[in-house]
Amino acid sequence: MREVRQISLPVKDLPDRWYNIIPDLPEPLPAAEGDMTAMGKAIIKECLNQEFSAQNWVEIPDELHGAYQQIGRPRPLFRAVNLERRLDTSAELYYKAEGLFSPTGSHKINTAIAQAYYAKQQGLGRLVTETGAGQWGTALSCAARIMGLKATVYWVRAVYKWKEARRDFMKLYGADVFASPSENTETGRKLVRQDSEHPGSLAIAISEGLEDALSDDRAAYVLGSVLNHVLLHQTIIGLECRKQLELVDRYPDVVVSCLGGGSNFGGIALPFLGDAVKQGRKTRFVAAQSQAAPNLQGEYRYDNADYSGITPRLKMYTLGHQKEMPPIFGDGIRYHGCSPILSLLRNRGYIDTVAYPTDEKYVFDCAKLFLSEEGFLPAPESAYSIAAAIDEANACSEAGESRTILFNVSGHGFMDMEGYRQVLQI
Amino acid sequence: MREVRQISLPVKDLPDRWYNIIPDLPEPLPAAEGDMTAMGKAIIKECLNQEFSAQNWVEIPDELHGAYQQIGRPRPLFRAVNLERRLDTSAELYYKAEGLFSPTGSHKINTAIAQAYYAKQQGLGRLVTETGAGQWGTALSCAARIMGLKATVYWVRAVYKWKEARRDFMKLYGADVFASPSENTETGRKLVRQDSEHPGSLAIAISEGLEDALSDDRAAYVLGSVLNHVLLHQTIIGLECRKQLELVDRYPDVVVSCLGGGSNFGGIALPFLGDAVKQGRKTRFVAAQSQAAPNLQGEYRYDNADYSGITPRLKMYTLGHQKEMPPIFGDGIRYHGCSPILSLLRNRGYIDTVAYPTDEKYVFDCAKLFLSEEGFLPAPESAYSIAAAIDEANACSEAGESRTILFNVSGHGFMDMEGYRQVLQI
Repeated sequence: MREVRQISLPVKDLPDRWYNIIPDLPEPLPAAEGDMTAMGKAIIKECLNQEFSAQNWVEIPDELHGAYQQIGRPRPLFRAVNLERRLDTSAELYYKAEGLFSPTGSHKINTAIAQAYYAKQQGLGRLVTETGAGQWGTALSCAARIMGLKATVYWVRAVYKWKEARRDFMKLYGADVFASPSENTETGRKLVRQDSEHPGSLAIAISEGLEDALSDDRAAYVLGSVLNHVLLHQTIIGLECRKQLELVDRYPDVVVSCLGGGSNFGGIALPFLGDAVKQGRKTRFVAAQSQAAPNLQGEYRYDNADYSGITPRLKMYTLGHQKEMPPIFGDGIRYHGCSPILSLLRNRGYIDTVAYPTDEKYVFDCAKLFLSEEGFLPAPESAYSIAAAIDEANACSEAGESRTILFNVSGHGFMDMEGYRQVLQI
Repeated sequence: MREVRQISLPVKDLPDRWYNIIPDLPEPLPAAEGDMTAMGKAIIKECLNQEFSAQNWVEIPDELHGAYQQIGRPRPLFRAVNLERRLDTSAELYYKAEGLFSPTGSHKINTAIAQAYYAKQQGLGRLVTETGAGQWGTALSCAARIMGLKATVYWVRAVYKWKEARRDFMKLYGADVFASPSENTETGRKLVRQDSEHPGSLAIAISEGLEDALSDDRAAYVLGSVLNHVLLHQTIIGLECRKQLELVDRYPDVVVSCLGGGSNFGGIALPFLGDAVKQGRKTRFVAAQSQAAPNLQGEYRYDNADYSGITPRLKMYTLGHQKEMPPIFGDGIRYHGCSPILSLLRNRGYIDTVAYPTDEKYVFDCAKLFLSEEGFLPAPESAYSIAAAIDEANACSEAGESRTILFNVSGHGFMDMEGYRQVLQI
């Protein structure tokens, strides 16, 4: 008998619209506070419209639909048959291969390509952004290139210096990549004058990017997480999963993903969270986090999205925008605040969370187990998704129940072997 | 209007048998010469049967069909719309994403998983192999792990030492990886005694692997290219492509792939070569090679598959089994001889060849162009496929014709940025 291990979606069933949960939220999304001038000017106009859209569904334009095909969408949903056997679990485990089938190695390309498309429509010539771990900078470099735009990436110097392969990858896409602080901006020059080898920070890189974009009428500043329009674009993940699970007559009892700012968690979960809110479905949503940055265990209040306080204040779960967070290999989930949409749903009890120890031993062990059984190498961030999915499967077995668990492997680890080496002492 | 950029094949249409061209060849395949005892004893029995099979079609067992799904098969076929536009070509370009959607980064997993399956059926406990560039060693490590077998990899020390990420990757799959020459075998110990830092060679690694496998009744020695059964397993590539092209009502006028021993070229080309031989179809087949190892421009004669002359002699195109070949980044196509099946077809005029300069500037430039337009990062070996596909597209435009060009991107380059950096001086 042949087992189903992969559920493919025909290209003709690639979703042609994104899901916007805002009108379905149990209460209105609190407005941002503070000065919007800089951000309002720097962001792509159509993205700003989408940020406050009251429509439930937003059409994916035809050209972008083609670009989604080009970057490997729809991506397969796998049933982790071997992992189920190894865990001897009563649960069914399904994972979405977002990073493994992405040209840049993560789900970030889903919104990068959309933003680049709208920037081109607007007649812009250049996109500017910051990057920390580098996944977002790579995705933006790729998307800009595909849409015929220039890209400028300000990359925290401390990371820029050692991630040589990823840096070359961005440059190969034609991006201008600068160690931040740089000589390009007022903010950067001041800091470089104090210390020519200043290690930088995400906050400084954001300041530099904004300053750069605002000084050029043909440039926009683009963001890779937290904001509503970013999560909107990422719902393509969950919309595909819903169709794929329907093909095998399943609906998730549990949805799991790692969470930093919220783009990959929101991407897979929002379509199902919409069902939970509107139809009262009892799906369990688990955000996998690190004790280095357990933002969903923080306070629900207004806070800045960046360290320096340049951006408007958003109502969100936060650890405080100047919180010091210990370094981890899963750097993509090391962020002080969570997307306002997900924060509201967390506050209303729809989202549960688990935070794993900062030594990362447990999550890398889980990633290794996944690799051993399923063959694919996950990114450190995705190791958190996998750990939480395994914990949920074990809980399901203990309860003697049969549950359908859906989880997101949002990145591959081909450029992150250093984490495996150090944590697992290979 | 929406363009077709990706042709997906539903899982239910994943081929359930491989194509064996041997009975269709225009003349009988010349028998191997020399002592077969060691190889006959060391190779998996079912693979040995397949090596000499007279059946046109070989069933893929159900469990292996499931494993093929698990490793991401069927893989998508992409139409390179952006690249076509950039080249302003009258040709249609279709590329198969073999490496980009593979857990180990290349097409090698297609035969690794099949061989591991048969080894398990035979009751074996361990697979032994050699590796040069490392793609084959990684695939074998993954396949063995998935099938619950141990893997031992002898890796040419000169490469083992610097490809740290790939080495960790194999070890993470649970493989025992040894720098060759090693202390494990008589052959190895002799050489290590002379020079404890002996750089090794593929030939030495083969000798070590064979010695190791022959000393253990529960072990087999497995090969990743050249032999008939390896090419048989790889025909899954071309069989999928045929179905995918049928979905858009196309048949290839030109089939292109890079060629070293012949496994990825054979994989994509053999089903169409069968049509050329049986039905006289006028498809053009182009093997992309390096001037470092233009084996298809060598002599068609009996020669050994290894440096030391341990293996039987095969009738093939060869540069001589002790030919010195300059190092290139596309190390996977740096081999002195070509598969006997493909050699026979070359000798009968079915296969054309092009060899690119050893500085690799042109092929890396083509890979960069491909990345810029299509988004995906190819392995250095696949850069040769891309270069030849681009050349064919330009020739087609010059002839003012409309041709369907099919090419294979057999590996991704996430672990090969060093080649891009050095050749393109990023």
